[in-house]
Amino acid sequence: LSSNPASDAALRVRDLGEFGLIERLQARIAARANVRFEPRARAAAQQLGTLELSIGDDAAVWRPRDAERQVITTDALVENVHFRLSTTSWRDLGWKSLAVNVSDLAAMAATPRYALITLGLPGDTLVAEVIELYEGMLDLAEKFAVDLIGGDLVSAPCLMLNVTAIGEAAGELLRRDAGKVGDLLAVTGTLGASVGGLRLLEAGRADDAFHQSLLSAHLRPLPRVTEAAALVEAGLRCGMDLSDGLLGDTAHLCEQSRLGAVIDLDAVPAHPALQAEFGPQTLPLALAGGEDYELLCAGPAESIEQAQRLLRPLGTPLTVVGRLIERSPGGPLVRVVDRSGQPVEPPNLSWDHFRG
Amino acid sequence: LSSNPASDAALRVRDLGEFGLIERLQARIAARANVRFEPRARAAAQQLGTLELSIGDDAAVWRPRDAERQVITTDALVENVHFRLSTTSWRDLGWKSLAVNVSDLAAMAATPRYALITLGLPGDTLVAEVIELYEGMLDLAEKFAVDLIGGDLVSAPCLMLNVTAIGEAAGELLRRDAGKVGDLLAVTGTLGASVGGLRLLEAGRADDAFHQSLLSAHLRPLPRVTEAAALVEAGLRCGMDLSDGLLGDTAHLCEQSRLGAVIDLDAVPAHPALQAEFGPQTLPLALAGGEDYELLCAGPAESIEQAQRLLRPLGTPLTVVGRLIERSPGGPLVRVVDRSGQPVEPPNLSWDHFRG
Repeated sequence: LSSNPASDAALRVRDLGEFGLIERLQARIAARANVRFEPRARAAAQQLGTLELSIGDDAAVWRPRDAERQVITTDALVENVHFRLSTTSWRDLGWKSLAVNVSDLAAMAATPRYALITLGLPGDTLVAEVIELYEGMLDLAEKFAVDLIGGDLVSAPCLMLNVTAIGEAAGELLRRDAGKVGDLLAVTGTLGASVGGLRLLEAGRADDAFHQSLLSAHLRPLPRVTEAAALVEAGLRCGMDLSDGLLGDTAHLCEQSRLGAVIDLDAVPAHPALQAEFGPQTLPLALAGGEDYELLCAGPAESIEQAQRLLRPLGTPLTVVGRLIERSPGGPLVRVVDRSGQPVEPPNLSWDHFRG
Repeated sequence: LSSNPASDAALRVRDLGEFGLIERLQARIAARANVRFEPRARAAAQQLGTLELSIGDDAAVWRPRDAERQVITTDALVENVHFRLSTTSWRDLGWKSLAVNVSDLAAMAATPRYALITLGLPGDTLVAEVIELYEGMLDLAEKFAVDLIGGDLVSAPCLMLNVTAIGEAAGELLRRDAGKVGDLLAVTGTLGASVGGLRLLEAGRADDAFHQSLLSAHLRPLPRVTEAAALVEAGLRCGMDLSDGLLGDTAHLCEQSRLGAVIDLDAVPAHPALQAEFGPQTLPLALAGGEDYELLCAGPAESIEQAQRLLRPLGTPLTVVGRLIERSPGGPLVRVVDRSGQPVEPPNLSWDHFRG
């Protein structure tokens, strides 16, 4: 994108998109951080812990002196942008809003500990609905021993939620920037169930018992906290959670690791309930549908095999779907190939907040 | 308020108000925390740090094993609820959104370290304005050595900001619940400047050079980070920052300390620029105007005097404005008295988000 000041003055957020805007802001933040800090304040900070990982991964990481790493992430959900009260109950919304943040902690292999909840609400919201929202958060919080330790409650024109979750990492991290050429790419569980469930909900089929697994994948995703610990134990160091779809998130991992990737179309583990309902759309949904909250990891074959052994008692499959390669200049970050190795045109379903 | 299930079903957020709703949610959270956590998850968490302070103070506090206390706070700002773009520039808005969170860390006597920024924006927002917003945050961040380490960027129907700030406390904390009967109550700086500045802005007098100190108190408040460290060094352990006005915040402190308070009207240090502009409204503004971001503390006379000595080189006055007393059943939490000790009817300007 141009950095011509004249054209920049008229540039709107939707022209840059979510990721373009983040890139610009990140550049400004980097330019002004640290060196320009007020000397006395910097000196006080330097006697305390150190920042290990900032913008660009699933969460940020700092380490207090002589202590475990602290991992933090935040996510916002806005009514009619991220969810509709016509297709989710307040309780499911509560579960999911905390689950997606806990999933970002799992994506770093951190143990979730605390959460802060900011809630923007119109004044005529029913109190009983707000309580239900919190009950849903607490359903999830109880499963992962998360304490809700604070937040803010404000008046707003529509319902909006901002959840901040904090974890501690006693072991090594799963980072997006730790991929190496030749690493295998693997995913936990199956893909596409969440977007399949969303389509059923939008079609008014919320009570379709046959597709309960798709609906619950969308409404009550289960973050892969235990699985992430197993990946690290198996020696894996590169990974993230899948929120934007396998293709989009593999691209994010490639950007951070400064590599490219090849995905084997036939290896992608689509959720088994998709085929009956969505037929030929099954693989596109599994490749590009978002909000699966499975883990994507990269590492040598031995570590992947060891992780598969450790995940067996949990009943969670870990499927190799491709590998990391050198980035080819001018080519796409992620290539999808069929069983004969021929390139396949990937479906473009990935989500950008300002481009839709 | 009634807890009759039939009437509860129709209760709306505005009926309970911000603090009533927080109380209900806090009760649910307390009922479900810890004991109901999944045993395996609880066991994993217990090997890590411990939660020291949850909902109810200016910030939450946990302590990783063998490390300094970690302090976290979060605050949301919604367009046309907390600010209007007609009375603030994007840059000032950026400064203030981070400043109010850093002030909450100062309120605990923590050293600010990190911040996460969630931004909800309409897609047609100018990129240059978003950059200006961040420049304002970075202006403040540089002063206090704060790293912006993450956040989220989402599409929303109006501008909304959620800032989460993290600090570390190497020394003791300033807590709201540490007040004792007989403690003197004291405030740093002067009061009422911010609400005075807001009234000038709303009257279209943003360029009134004579009242620059009022305008900048409202638009670019300076959190009392260094002052808070001095208060703790002087032996004070009870304190908070003033965001809801002296009367409202003294009530919050009394609630947490389970005490009452008496404020001496004549001792309240109103900002010197208020009198000329606001005449007889000066004391009401100083008592009940919000967003001063000064510190309110409570402690024995010797500690207050020691704090006054330590604050002198910083040029910050610390003024005794009253004292903590036993709570009188049925009476008001905070009484205001004149110089003869007679009760004065306090002005009610304190802010509740859903009652306005």
